[in-house]
Amino acid sequence: MSAITVPLSSTSRTALRRRKERGSTDRDDLYAVLDAGMICHLGVVLDGSPRVLPTAYGRIDDTLYLHGSVANSAFGGADDHEVCVTVTLLDGLVCARSVNAHSMNYRSAMIFGIARMVHDEAGRLAGLRAVTETLIPGRWAATREPNRKEMAAVAVLALPLAEASVKIRTGGPLDASQDYALDVWAGVVPVRTVFGTPEPDPALRPGLPVPQHIRDRVTS
Amino acid sequence: MSAITVPLSSTSRTALRRRKERGSTDRDDLYAVLDAGMICHLGVVLDGSPRVLPTAYGRIDDTLYLHGSVANSAFGGADDHEVCVTVTLLDGLVCARSVNAHSMNYRSAMIFGIARMVHDEAGRLAGLRAVTETLIPGRWAATREPNRKEMAAVAVLALPLAEASVKIRTGGPLDASQDYALDVWAGVVPVRTVFGTPEPDPALRPGLPVPQHIRDRVTS
Repeated sequence: MSAITVPLSSTSRTALRRRKERGSTDRDDLYAVLDAGMICHLGVVLDGSPRVLPTAYGRIDDTLYLHGSVANSAFGGADDHEVCVTVTLLDGLVCARSVNAHSMNYRSAMIFGIARMVHDEAGRLAGLRAVTETLIPGRWAATREPNRKEMAAVAVLALPLAEASVKIRTGGPLDASQDYALDVWAGVVPVRTVFGTPEPDPALRPGLPVPQHIRDRVTS
Repeated sequence: MSAITVPLSSTSRTALRRRKERGSTDRDDLYAVLDAGMICHLGVVLDGSPRVLPTAYGRIDDTLYLHGSVANSAFGGADDHEVCVTVTLLDGLVCARSVNAHSMNYRSAMIFGIARMVHDEAGRLAGLRAVTETLIPGRWAATREPNRKEMAAVAVLALPLAEASVKIRTGGPLDASQDYALDVWAGVVPVRTVFGTPEPDPALRPGLPVPQHIRDRVTS
């Protein structure tokens, strides 16, 4: 999986629609990958060293919001610095006849840019809401909103979706022509992320049913 | 999710066994997270900028092997440079009564060190085998091994498991005491990665059944 950097700007509509073998420049593809994921990996340079942090995220239009703690130095170190945020969704193990032709079906988005800590309360709340709603749509409205003290411990980074690379692989194995005669099984083992039966908190108040937004999240 | 850096060295056995709330220093925990994952995110600094690449990996004892292409500049740029490799497994969405107390159950390993490109053919083959076997145990022996020309296009990075941080969160939500009286459902939505029914390559030779090592991978 290698990266192709493509500017996603409103001034290069042609580039936006160009599609390479595993590189897509379509903004809709970028949105689709981001909206399907739950965790991103935030890359920052801290004292000259790379750090890769898994974090929750959410998207509002062309801004990605990342959620962290004010106590996390690497997360805080991303403020006003160049970052790379990668979201990867694994869709299948592609089994070929030769070891070399094995591959994975996946969707990945790599976003480049300067991240900025959000300071205004309305923006921070909106970012946190986007993060929550990415994980469980409908959850925000069903819960108690954060108070001022709680918000003080939350760090919200914003990253514009200005430069990104989207890569998508689908389909079966592509073996060298002479290998199709081999007695080796080839195909795809699909990989999926599923949500199981909700497990109520043992301390849950009696009589509280599993709400619709949680039931909607469970994989049928 | 923040990182706690802990040296994993044979000279600090006490540190190895120390366990913090979400930080574990147990080498067995590190192995368990790495052996359960399929994709890692490799962080490198390229021309001063962070890059986060999703790659396949495998482990042999205390060395992590990463698989890439010789054509990928960021992957190649990791050679003899400091990297951060993160593996994250999402286990559950932790739903609390307040937005602020929401969390995720997860296992993550963050490994720090100098990566080195493997140059000797035996080492490269062993690394590639470890990568393949991490994805589908038993696959290597069932397929055609790479030839010299194919191996020339493969890049294998090795990273010693010398310094790492393992973080594991399990269990239900932890709300502020006054929030337990709220009429909000709380609990955990389990998240799992599953392997579906194998999809044979349309070009598969007739009469080739799905082999046992593939059937073993499918989630029952």
